[in-house]
Amino acid sequence: MAQHPLPSLLPQTGLTRHRRLREQGSLRRADLDAILDAGFVCHLGVVVDGRPLVVPTVYGRDEGRLYLHGSVASRSLAGGAPVCVTVTHVDGLVLARSVFDHGVNYRSAIIHGTARKVTDPDEKLAGLRRLTEHATPGQWSYARRPDRKELAATTLLALSLEEASVKIRAGAPDDGDGPDAGSGVWAGTLPLTATWGVPEPDPLLAPGILPPEHIARRAGTRHG
Amino acid sequence: MAQHPLPSLLPQTGLTRHRRLREQGSLRRADLDAILDAGFVCHLGVVVDGRPLVVPTVYGRDEGRLYLHGSVASRSLAGGAPVCVTVTHVDGLVLARSVFDHGVNYRSAIIHGTARKVTDPDEKLAGLRRLTEHATPGQWSYARRPDRKELAATTLLALSLEEASVKIRAGAPDDGDGPDAGSGVWAGTLPLTATWGVPEPDPLLAPGILPPEHIARRAGTRHG
Repeated sequence: MAQHPLPSLLPQTGLTRHRRLREQGSLRRADLDAILDAGFVCHLGVVVDGRPLVVPTVYGRDEGRLYLHGSVASRSLAGGAPVCVTVTHVDGLVLARSVFDHGVNYRSAIIHGTARKVTDPDEKLAGLRRLTEHATPGQWSYARRPDRKELAATTLLALSLEEASVKIRAGAPDDGDGPDAGSGVWAGTLPLTATWGVPEPDPLLAPGILPPEHIARRAGTRHG
Repeated sequence: MAQHPLPSLLPQTGLTRHRRLREQGSLRRADLDAILDAGFVCHLGVVVDGRPLVVPTVYGRDEGRLYLHGSVASRSLAGGAPVCVTVTHVDGLVLARSVFDHGVNYRSAIIHGTARKVTDPDEKLAGLRRLTEHATPGQWSYARRPDRKELAATTLLALSLEEASVKIRAGAPDDGDGPDAGSGVWAGTLPLTATWGVPEPDPLLAPGILPPEHIARRAGTRHG
């Protein structure tokens, strides 16, 4: 996706400053963009009656904004309530000599902000296009686009990508040069990879309709 | 994992009652257990100064309780604050004839409760065992277990599995019998599968140490 006009370094604020495991923190906006572009499901956190609620939903982005499918949380978002959106890719298990040094290789982005309900039909259409193309590039110009009634029935949220915290952990366990190194315990990582499968046609599909190239070519490719 | 002694039907409360897409909601505790057992990373939501914070962390479960690695949220959890823990498995894209009917096939569990910091060393050890065995069955009896100092340095949270909301969406798009069915647009699903890779040894590992059977045999198997 296009680069956005925000600073190339993420701001360090009270919300985003890395308190723990600082060596895993990244301030590069390019890392944020890459983490967002590698996925399509986020976890949206809102506060409802003083309690946290975390729901999975789909997202897309443009130059500086995140768009979210927001119906599931819409009753909680009147009045510009604060939200937190987290995107996580799990890359594998970190298997150390000691249980204490076990962990996960991952890439995560935590975005803080205030979600705005998109009401302008043009912006909503543009946002839904980002969202659709984000999950399935090529699909917006292939499937039937939302009509006025469908557009009105869709809740779309927009969120600035200004304030975000990025963490990345990769590579081997940390206890390879510690006292447990001579213990004879195997240590390393067990990678985890998500892969797109072969398109499965709707049983109600009329015979002879084949998946378009932009869908068929994803089969067997890596996701995330 | 073992079955827990909670009712086989999930309670319908103000927090868990399905408001949207009711046909995707499940009240079967067995579905909750299966979703939890299929993953090892959750998204933990807490409220910090009135704002939501959503962080990824690892978890395990026993008969009725969820255990979470909680360091990242520990400063927010003094005094039994409410938490929301969400586990989501993304099974694929739902590609309909119309953009409006696009969606995701997924399984998700949203658990509401009050996280308790585990302080008793025996319970902490038992909880960490669940957590370790949950991510990597067989690893607790293979790697070096936490000593007293490491145990004290680990923040473990416990949460009742009593109040939870489960949603599952599977299968074909919903517009196969609607007015778009004759449009000639291909519709179906694009499956997404996570697979364990081949163990990658720590470069600092002494020569001749091979991955144990419980790790090696996961290579090529499905996760989630």
